[in-house]
Amino acid sequence: MRRWNGWGDDTINAELNSDALAFLRQQIGATEAPQDASLEAALAQVAQQPSRLPPHPLVSSAPEHRLQASFGQSMGDWLRLRFGRIGRVSDGVAWPESSAQVRELLDWAAAVGAIVIPCGGATSVVGHLSPPEDGGRPVLTLMLSHLRKLLQLDTVSQLATFQAGVAGPDLEAQLRAQGWMLGHYPQSFEYATLGGWIVTRSSGQQSARYGRIEAMFAGGRLETPTGTLEIPTFPASAAGPDLREWVLGSEGRLGVLTEASVRVQRLPACERFVGVFLPGWAEGEAAARELAQARLGLSMLRLSNPIETLTTLRLAGHAKAIAWLERYLALRGCAAGDKVLLMMGLTGSKAQVAAMQAQARAILKRHGGISTGTLLGAKWQANRFRGVYLRNALWAQGYAVDTMETAVDWPRVPATMAAIEAAGREALAALGERCHAYTHLSHVYAQGSSVYSTFVFRIGPDFERAWARWQALKGAVSQAIVASGGTISHQHGVGKDHAPYLAHEKGARGMQGLQALVAHFDPQGVMASGNLLPPQPR
Amino acid sequence: MRRWNGWGDDTINAELNSDALAFLRQQIGATEAPQDASLEAALAQVAQQPSRLPPHPLVSSAPEHRLQASFGQSMGDWLRLRFGRIGRVSDGVAWPESSAQVRELLDWAAAVGAIVIPCGGATSVVGHLSPPEDGGRPVLTLMLSHLRKLLQLDTVSQLATFQAGVAGPDLEAQLRAQGWMLGHYPQSFEYATLGGWIVTRSSGQQSARYGRIEAMFAGGRLETPTGTLEIPTFPASAAGPDLREWVLGSEGRLGVLTEASVRVQRLPACERFVGVFLPGWAEGEAAARELAQARLGLSMLRLSNPIETLTTLRLAGHAKAIAWLERYLALRGCAAGDKVLLMMGLTGSKAQVAAMQAQARAILKRHGGISTGTLLGAKWQANRFRGVYLRNALWAQGYAVDTMETAVDWPRVPATMAAIEAAGREALAALGERCHAYTHLSHVYAQGSSVYSTFVFRIGPDFERAWARWQALKGAVSQAIVASGGTISHQHGVGKDHAPYLAHEKGARGMQGLQALVAHFDPQGVMASGNLLPPQPR
Repeated sequence: MRRWNGWGDDTINAELNSDALAFLRQQIGATEAPQDASLEAALAQVAQQPSRLPPHPLVSSAPEHRLQASFGQSMGDWLRLRFGRIGRVSDGVAWPESSAQVRELLDWAAAVGAIVIPCGGATSVVGHLSPPEDGGRPVLTLMLSHLRKLLQLDTVSQLATFQAGVAGPDLEAQLRAQGWMLGHYPQSFEYATLGGWIVTRSSGQQSARYGRIEAMFAGGRLETPTGTLEIPTFPASAAGPDLREWVLGSEGRLGVLTEASVRVQRLPACERFVGVFLPGWAEGEAAARELAQARLGLSMLRLSNPIETLTTLRLAGHAKAIAWLERYLALRGCAAGDKVLLMMGLTGSKAQVAAMQAQARAILKRHGGISTGTLLGAKWQANRFRGVYLRNALWAQGYAVDTMETAVDWPRVPATMAAIEAAGREALAALGERCHAYTHLSHVYAQGSSVYSTFVFRIGPDFERAWARWQALKGAVSQAIVASGGTISHQHGVGKDHAPYLAHEKGARGMQGLQALVAHFDPQGVMASGNLLPPQPR
Repeated sequence: MRRWNGWGDDTINAELNSDALAFLRQQIGATEAPQDASLEAALAQVAQQPSRLPPHPLVSSAPEHRLQASFGQSMGDWLRLRFGRIGRVSDGVAWPESSAQVRELLDWAAAVGAIVIPCGGATSVVGHLSPPEDGGRPVLTLMLSHLRKLLQLDTVSQLATFQAGVAGPDLEAQLRAQGWMLGHYPQSFEYATLGGWIVTRSSGQQSARYGRIEAMFAGGRLETPTGTLEIPTFPASAAGPDLREWVLGSEGRLGVLTEASVRVQRLPACERFVGVFLPGWAEGEAAARELAQARLGLSMLRLSNPIETLTTLRLAGHAKAIAWLERYLALRGCAAGDKVLLMMGLTGSKAQVAAMQAQARAILKRHGGISTGTLLGAKWQANRFRGVYLRNALWAQGYAVDTMETAVDWPRVPATMAAIEAAGREALAALGERCHAYTHLSHVYAQGSSVYSTFVFRIGPDFERAWARWQALKGAVSQAIVASGGTISHQHGVGKDHAPYLAHEKGARGMQGLQALVAHFDPQGVMASGNLLPPQPR
């Protein structure tokens, strides 16, 4: 069963080995986990907020449903659940089975003055599911998980049309049964949904081959408060603005995506992941950039900075094997404290994989790369959706983990990375706490790169201190991102947590345009969740 | 000097050889060219329309400027110029030198109640430059050709920032001087501009490698009637809607694009174009689809249908060489009447080109392909921007040429091609005329293909009959395109000629949204050219 106050399935437990724990204690100090609030206590708080929605046959106001529908996976969500500070929750929850039921519920919400929040896999890390702060109107959450059917598979055009609430593993299983795949693998893959990916502009781990979700999304059906927007599929078009772009990144402010056609692939003949060490950050960044700009067709390219490389090796356990590896690397010129780990995915036909491997090897060699073959790559692959479970294990030891990310053009990468890590460390230092911050480039482009930083810090003994630490960290890092000229998100989306920073990149004129588009599709503010933009006046 | 009533530079003359002429006479009948109107007569008609604009130091109302600014390259433009039916022209013309001057002119236009039409290279084939029909307000055309500077070249991020009025050859020359290139080569390359490409969603001949203009456009500056929209560059972003998508396909309805950053490339080490014959359409289409779906990294892939293949060979001249080629092909199983020509571009490092050639060869062999090596490819390459000059030569013999194009998913390709050609032939048959129609797939995607048809017909002895023929053809083919489920344009844009068909793909809800966005940025209707959407009420 899915955890109500943490990540993932409660039968899956990530282990934090003793070396890793010792490493963290050395970095940021020893601590203990605070006492978790009980589910019963949380439900009791929900029960104290009577639903403000009138009854509807499709809508449940059971406290467990309202609780489940109101939280994603942002640090704010975690803190509120773990410390039992539930706050405002959704007033009712529905699981529509069709576009027609979504329409019916939108119309009903408009009639009763409710705000609608669509929910895919509830994996948002930026606060998408919290009811808006002002709280004057009832909130109806549409859980889209029953919209999971494969409606059509056109193998000639390599297009699959799904109901948009289908979750990653279910989607891939339905395709794989017929020899096909989509290839969108964000870390939240286990629960995240196709529609959620589209409306938040998601990026999967192998987007270098398969494309970001923008490149996969070929058409669909958006139920807006003022009618249905049907977007047909074309391989390309010059017929004015592309309406798919209204859906991408709309974060539930224009309507509910109920169907989506996506570009699918045959299963590849060959796939491997290779880990390569380079002597330092400068060499690693230069190699990653050259690999991206050489258009080799790699399916993945990630580069950990020295602290992340060190942390990855420490958290991996197997102290003896790692010590052996480090001796080997030192002999070959990769010193312990400076070395960086580059992980690359090679996917395609046998001939394609062989060709890209040969070209990649030549580039990496020039930058002093030392390959470990698939030794670390296979490990990465096996754990690609399990790493996120470590969040539970760390919490149990008293440590909070948050991640923040951006993307910048190449010349800005090193300074942005440094500014983000420093901002996190300084924000917590001002509260007398240490922060273990490390970074990788998770998605590497010819033009630049994403910069993805992880922050581990002590949760704190009570809600107030924990909240203050997280708010200080989140605010300082977000400021550092926009001050560095980065986008406020490369892959997590905007939600409520990033909304205050959006104007830095869209500008006043852009923000007004976005408001105008929202006001046009949703003049009554039915979708006024507060995600992306401040709620529309009603 | 550029021709005032035809394509291109008047020192460049394409020749129509006697075999080609005999072939056309056989197909659609002999004819003669009508008498062209003189430039003097055209200017006299302009002079009879006094400019309705008050004077402004940046604005010329000289008749030659007003004439030049009011016509592109659509068949309607040609007929009006050649027969001397000038009709309404722009009231004034300005050549702004900076974003600030564009701003000044937009504000002035708003103050004096004028409509502004931006003009790049005046290569539109869909009527973008004609003043709107109703004609109640003065029209100011902004010629953007003086905005041609390379403002910044960031070789690390592979980004070049240009003023947006820069024309293709000028842009490539400025980049090439530093070892770089963009790689956007529409047939109109000789005159078309970067800004024009972006606002009409242009696609170049080698977009399979370099991407459509959408993939190149990284950010820029749009001067709208209600303020400046600055779009910064990021390698990727999940921060809500992508504002570049408001500019792409906006066709001058939201403002004037004055600067654009584009993703550039190092010059490739290796490039070749290879022509391959296949025994019939089914084999050719299957091969093209398989090549596109195999992700080989080809820079170009085009497939001519049997009539186009035959026409290409006839128009090439060299009757003896072609006869020899045809005997060779017949011996190898490609019969005269059924064979199709596939042209592919291979671009990249030596290793990449060798790898893609080997993989392409294996695929083509399975479908019965017979390569002619670079024999026909080099010829295609040499003439890639000269073919369009044939339009002048054909007109001189009494023949009009128009092209129409769409894109559809793969299962619809054959029926769409057949419907488009039949619609053209039948429309002219109803007027007692024959039409020589032929088609190629000009841009081939994993999901589907563009379908690009050429129609040659006798101009007719007078304007009325010529206009009626073109209108019948254009209407029937456009109807066939939307009835086939195709987009109204894969690469030409919408302008005025395609505007009536746009609602077929955008839907009523989509059209209202587009109108709302236009109304938001341009509430006074300063940009109300009638392109893309009906003019906004003022």
